[in-house]
Amino acid sequence: MRIGTVGTGFITNYILDNIEKTDGISCHAVYSRNEDSARRLAEKYHIEKTYTDYERMLSDDSLNFIYIASPNSLHYSQTKSALEHGKNVICEKPFTATAAEAVELIRLAKENHLFLFEAITTLHQPGFHWVRKNISLLGSIKMISLTFCQYSSRYDSLISGKLPNVFNPEFAGGALMDINLYNIHFLVGLFGKPDRIEYFAGTHENGIDTHGILILQFGDIICQCSGSKNTTCENNVQIMGEKGYIHVSPGSSNCQNSRLILRDSECSFCQKETPWYYEIQELTKIVQSNDYERCYQLLENTEIVVDILEKARKSAHLSF
Amino acid sequence: MRIGTVGTGFITNYILDNIEKTDGISCHAVYSRNEDSARRLAEKYHIEKTYTDYERMLSDDSLNFIYIASPNSLHYSQTKSALEHGKNVICEKPFTATAAEAVELIRLAKENHLFLFEAITTLHQPGFHWVRKNISLLGSIKMISLTFCQYSSRYDSLISGKLPNVFNPEFAGGALMDINLYNIHFLVGLFGKPDRIEYFAGTHENGIDTHGILILQFGDIICQCSGSKNTTCENNVQIMGEKGYIHVSPGSSNCQNSRLILRDSECSFCQKETPWYYEIQELTKIVQSNDYERCYQLLENTEIVVDILEKARKSAHLSF
Repeated sequence: MRIGTVGTGFITNYILDNIEKTDGISCHAVYSRNEDSARRLAEKYHIEKTYTDYERMLSDDSLNFIYIASPNSLHYSQTKSALEHGKNVICEKPFTATAAEAVELIRLAKENHLFLFEAITTLHQPGFHWVRKNISLLGSIKMISLTFCQYSSRYDSLISGKLPNVFNPEFAGGALMDINLYNIHFLVGLFGKPDRIEYFAGTHENGIDTHGILILQFGDIICQCSGSKNTTCENNVQIMGEKGYIHVSPGSSNCQNSRLILRDSECSFCQKETPWYYEIQELTKIVQSNDYERCYQLLENTEIVVDILEKARKSAHLSF
Repeated sequence: MRIGTVGTGFITNYILDNIEKTDGISCHAVYSRNEDSARRLAEKYHIEKTYTDYERMLSDDSLNFIYIASPNSLHYSQTKSALEHGKNVICEKPFTATAAEAVELIRLAKENHLFLFEAITTLHQPGFHWVRKNISLLGSIKMISLTFCQYSSRYDSLISGKLPNVFNPEFAGGALMDINLYNIHFLVGLFGKPDRIEYFAGTHENGIDTHGILILQFGDIICQCSGSKNTTCENNVQIMGEKGYIHVSPGSSNCQNSRLILRDSECSFCQKETPWYYEIQELTKIVQSNDYERCYQLLENTEIVVDILEKARKSAHLSF
């Protein structure tokens, strides 16, 4: 996997840190509209080439993968161009702003026999696999509580009157898209498509959701997903069954400590590495083993998640 | 306060334990339809009289308070009779099955200048007072998460085909009425009347809610109240503001450990006694100081809570 990156924010740094640690994947080009940003990132990670013209990077035959970490609203068009140039794509979460866009990109990837991934940590965590393996021990599951509240440094900027991308409706921002999404991926990874979706959002005066609680129902299982970018708290996932519960901390994006508590026994599982390490390891493994089936399975989850996000926004009358 | 009790379940034992520890309050009669139950309880607590006829106990001039801990659906009629006999009343939670019943009882108490209390632990906890005193330090409050899930021994009985009172729609049972109510009281104690009420209930085949998540909104503050009687988990209350959060454990019925976490400081508060100790101490103090104003203030909360319970049941299409 010979990668070219789009975007120079902190998430790109996390990904590049872990590309360096992983065999079979390497970065060879950095694209940014801003030449200085591109150069700074390329120097830090000893990357040969920089581009300020996206089309030119897509025409670079030495690259076979594009990693996209631009503002949310650009994911669709940049991923589409990359696929049309025959490049495989890893696109940051949230995958696209609308469900229709997701469907189109997935169709395009399949038609052209390309790999396409949403870069979401949740499903690649060993802790998440451990939860999925043990969940049947809980008996009939009744409720799940997922909390991911993280005060964003950019929230200070928002309330001081500026408009950072993550709080900009035009850039498909907000707490649901940016953070509660991890809670949704966790649930979709366990149960697939929900039967009911209701979002209760707290909004800034520009209409963006800064915090909110999403209710998802899967049959008789009732789940609450709390996500905010303007508060913090003790985050976790609690899966409650008739016979016991599973407690995951710090939560749905990083299943570091998972515990299974039954009436008369208890056991636990601990991850040692960062979430991005596992993500890069697993995506590389899928590509090296030519496992398109697993790739398209993961895209099914992505498609369900993007659909939930859209329906949730509608239920809360959010503007984009 | 010279008390006669109604009901012989474990909650009556908790209350009698704490009546023994408190000056100014004592129990002198036990009523039960079942003479054996009445005698057993009377012997355990060295109480002089037993009654199997409720009207006869209400005519006993040596009693000036009735403590009612019968099945929920009887609270209204038994409280009404007691008030009509000129007795002051402490009635277990949930106060009544419907909002109209609550309104009528409160009117009756005021007209006859009688004390009337809902026996709810939450509002009388020193930990709750501490939360209320410190909440302004959190800045603008955005979300509150309240979780109270407790596996009921009677749930085993329900799934084995029996019908214990707490899971009987005819007795106004269910998870919302019996346990999520504490979460509601906590919020009403802080913010009064909510602007939005939506309940998502999981039900048994008899139509009773065994678990559920209630969304309450107070202006821009979005709250989730999880309550179940068929699962267990790590219970707590988390109040999230722009400047920090408050964490209360084990939760809304017992504010034993409360912590305030701000960006650069932290402090905590710890209760030593049981919730019922504080409840009995505070009710006794209110009566001894003839503080009808405080009593009627508390009844305002009760009236709001009963109204929320009714609207929540309607929103989830529950049968009573």
